[in-house]
Amino acid sequence: MQEENSGQGRAAIVLLSGGLDSMTVLAIARQQGYHCHALSFDYGQRHNAELQAAQRIAEHYGVDHKIIHLGLDAIGGSALTDASIAVPETPQPGIPVTYVPARNTIFLAFALGWAEVLNARDVFIGVNAVDYSGYPDCRPEFITAFQTLANVATKAGVEGQRIQIHVPLITLSKADIIRRGIELGVDYAFTVSCYAADHQGRACGVCDACRLRAAGFASAKIQDPTLYQR
Amino acid sequence: MQEENSGQGRAAIVLLSGGLDSMTVLAIARQQGYHCHALSFDYGQRHNAELQAAQRIAEHYGVDHKIIHLGLDAIGGSALTDASIAVPETPQPGIPVTYVPARNTIFLAFALGWAEVLNARDVFIGVNAVDYSGYPDCRPEFITAFQTLANVATKAGVEGQRIQIHVPLITLSKADIIRRGIELGVDYAFTVSCYAADHQGRACGVCDACRLRAAGFASAKIQDPTLYQR
Repeated sequence: MQEENSGQGRAAIVLLSGGLDSMTVLAIARQQGYHCHALSFDYGQRHNAELQAAQRIAEHYGVDHKIIHLGLDAIGGSALTDASIAVPETPQPGIPVTYVPARNTIFLAFALGWAEVLNARDVFIGVNAVDYSGYPDCRPEFITAFQTLANVATKAGVEGQRIQIHVPLITLSKADIIRRGIELGVDYAFTVSCYAADHQGRACGVCDACRLRAAGFASAKIQDPTLYQR
Repeated sequence: MQEENSGQGRAAIVLLSGGLDSMTVLAIARQQGYHCHALSFDYGQRHNAELQAAQRIAEHYGVDHKIIHLGLDAIGGSALTDASIAVPETPQPGIPVTYVPARNTIFLAFALGWAEVLNARDVFIGVNAVDYSGYPDCRPEFITAFQTLANVATKAGVEGQRIQIHVPLITLSKADIIRRGIELGVDYAFTVSCYAADHQGRACGVCDACRLRAAGFASAKIQDPTLYQR
């Protein structure tokens, strides 16, 4: 999980949700010299504005971008994919209802498949210490277990080549992430974090994702470019 | 990976491709007393007849059945999902071109997600010792790594409950699997194994899957109910 090596033009898969974290990760991977292939998912999420943001970010950086359609709504079980579960407007104890069961396992599995096809050895994902407190699949032990899996699950692994899951944000606070992104010239006006954004990508201002994002900009003392609905 | 415990009416997810192996696994899980929920994937595979077989098998056993649509063809890289790669008619050295990158990782990830939603702790998958020689994600070390992942990736894992990936066929030959299925009353006429089956589910008779299946019936001295195209 070390990030010191230069990409040296090697292909990497970058999971790109269209949020603040994943745009920062894409900027970091590019700065490390990787030839980036961005991967997004249309999984029946409520906030389709995030997916449109992912498209604009990929275009902005001129990177290859694939959107995979997943029937995750068929499984349900999350406020993000099941219209009958409301997105909370106040913080809730325990694992939030916005948790999508096995989401990062599924996303990384697809990234692994695309990495095999492209003969890439590097996958970037924007999990971080803030998400960590709530979602099981944002914890360092999850990433470690997935990396072990990746190296037995693939042709590359069987042939003795290491696949690396890069998590450059894992130990950063939201404010740290924003500061790092600004250093790299990231324009956060491209990004949508809100769980309940409207069709224009305007944020609700009250969901967990909005609160974390707003607090991050405030703490970093950087002007928040987010457009709000109210 | 022990299979001795009785299911005692507990919910289990069973990956059901519609092939010989997965129908046997479903019969085993039912015989162990699990309340089975079958999961199939429409992933742009050439052999849609297999998916129709999965539907008929689920109906036959009267089990809950979900088909998830995946854009795996967007990734390509396999003769099963990419029309530009031919299905070989003779055995090939190394990992076959019918290998779908990260397929079992993706399938198990979805099974894990559905298990979380249903509050199930058991997932069944029909990987076996014959597949093992060719596909990286059919090996016991892959299953062990996925099980470790499952227990850090999920709410259940965080809450200290064990998720079990059951692989009742892992050490069986194709003939052993068929004998076990026949003992459990499995009617293999329901199943389609061929990589290039036609719309009526008739098998090509020459692909790897057909060869393994035919050899299995011959070795088990059980009449092969497969319908062939020629």
